[in-house]
Amino acid sequence: MENRMVYLNGAIVPLEQAAISPLDIGLLRGYAVFDLLRTAGGRPFLLAEHLRRLRSSAEVLDLKVPVDDDAIAAAIDELLALNDHGEESVVRLVVTGGVSPDGMAFDPEQPTFLILTHDFHEPPAELYATGGILLTEEHHREAPEAKTTNYLTMLRNKPRTAAVGALDVLYHVGGRVSEAASASFYIVRDGVIHAPADRVLWGTVGSLVLDRASDTRSVVREGFTLEDVASADEAFLTSTTRGVMPIVRVDDVAIGDGAVGPVTHELMAHYAAAVAQAAGRS
Amino acid sequence: MENRMVYLNGAIVPLEQAAISPLDIGLLRGYAVFDLLRTAGGRPFLLAEHLRRLRSSAEVLDLKVPVDDDAIAAAIDELLALNDHGEESVVRLVVTGGVSPDGMAFDPEQPTFLILTHDFHEPPAELYATGGILLTEEHHREAPEAKTTNYLTMLRNKPRTAAVGALDVLYHVGGRVSEAASASFYIVRDGVIHAPADRVLWGTVGSLVLDRASDTRSVVREGFTLEDVASADEAFLTSTTRGVMPIVRVDDVAIGDGAVGPVTHELMAHYAAAVAQAAGRS
Repeated sequence: MENRMVYLNGAIVPLEQAAISPLDIGLLRGYAVFDLLRTAGGRPFLLAEHLRRLRSSAEVLDLKVPVDDDAIAAAIDELLALNDHGEESVVRLVVTGGVSPDGMAFDPEQPTFLILTHDFHEPPAELYATGGILLTEEHHREAPEAKTTNYLTMLRNKPRTAAVGALDVLYHVGGRVSEAASASFYIVRDGVIHAPADRVLWGTVGSLVLDRASDTRSVVREGFTLEDVASADEAFLTSTTRGVMPIVRVDDVAIGDGAVGPVTHELMAHYAAAVAQAAGRS
Repeated sequence: MENRMVYLNGAIVPLEQAAISPLDIGLLRGYAVFDLLRTAGGRPFLLAEHLRRLRSSAEVLDLKVPVDDDAIAAAIDELLALNDHGEESVVRLVVTGGVSPDGMAFDPEQPTFLILTHDFHEPPAELYATGGILLTEEHHREAPEAKTTNYLTMLRNKPRTAAVGALDVLYHVGGRVSEAASASFYIVRDGVIHAPADRVLWGTVGSLVLDRASDTRSVVREGFTLEDVASADEAFLTSTTRGVMPIVRVDDVAIGDGAVGPVTHELMAHYAAAVAQAAGRS
């Protein structure tokens, strides 16, 4: 979009005037964390959860989010009012270690804090009806409990995923599954939802829908393998921009009967209800 | 230094006017490679080798260095003439995937290409006499054949290495050694130099000194383990800013008799001769 406004270190300025220093350690050494939230009814959705996760990610890297939650919420509101992204938007918050004159040392008390807004492109509705594909990749993210800006392995896999219309890569080490590059990943077996044990990013959407399903569904958090995925009844991913997305194939293996299963449908309904509620449409 | 000039996408401008977009994929997704060279006698040292490695790193990530070697050499000469870093300088070349409006897609034909100069801080002379320390860390770099900007694991280890005065972290997976975070690493046993087998960054200094030593020393490139390191006669690292640096301790294990060994001394002499020759002092 034209004339986009962004927040940079306390000021809201036009994008072209928001200058990141060539000496920023987020650029020179990839030392940065971020978070991404969507709006519901034009208002930030799960804002408190995303801000808590941003601060937690920053802490893992010994970085600091330099302003309080109220100031961040006010900056987001102002950006959303200034930028016209249509009905819903995506908001990106980025924290780096700041400017590093020698390209190595930096002062965590002087971070770079950036807030950007983007158009929100929801996946096509038919994908939720038919389910998506993931391709596996042996990899474990560095600092997995933090949402760092390192997407090297994901972006290098883009041609491979694009070639078969896959949504994302599914990371594993020696067959032990952790998460997708840009989403949490779960399987369902005999009506029970299986989640990764640890060393993955805490998921805002996954947490929301599992919480809403907790009256009727049990969740086992002991992790699982690619073999478990292959023999699962259902699989799904959760993410900010995709909500609850059924996964019906991983590499060449169909999950269950290859159709979207009942537990995934339940969770999709929980997510839709939460969004509608937040948007004031329920 | 004040009034530093930098090269950004074809123009040489003051640092404060060199604006990296907040939408640069090098910042938002860490999708970038770089190289670092030193001067010898004020002139770029091993320039051809560093430019070859930069292009090779870019290729691994499907990125493009947008100008030819002559143009890069001219830009470096101009920056070195404008910026006063003292007798010797360090030159950093950075290539990112460029501006990404949605924070994910980018056009490799429109990269960001940045050249920065820094002061050159050589390690203290006594460190070459006594030798340095490395601390081990289980990790293998993503896209290890490329010099990417991802230094997450290295920077997160800074407090730990600083606490014991270690020079760097030494990466291994299951005891199999690859490289240090910012240097190549070799061991010596019975007069033979042992190098990693593959999946490490090609080292400009390592290559130079091993080539100069090839008349008298043999090199085995089959890799080695932490056990091999513990029982080695000598160990050393090579890097642009440290040249050939003896390593006399890895974690709590003394290498050989804990003093700088004869093969390392030979290679240090080769490196010093190469620098002196390039500087016109030989």
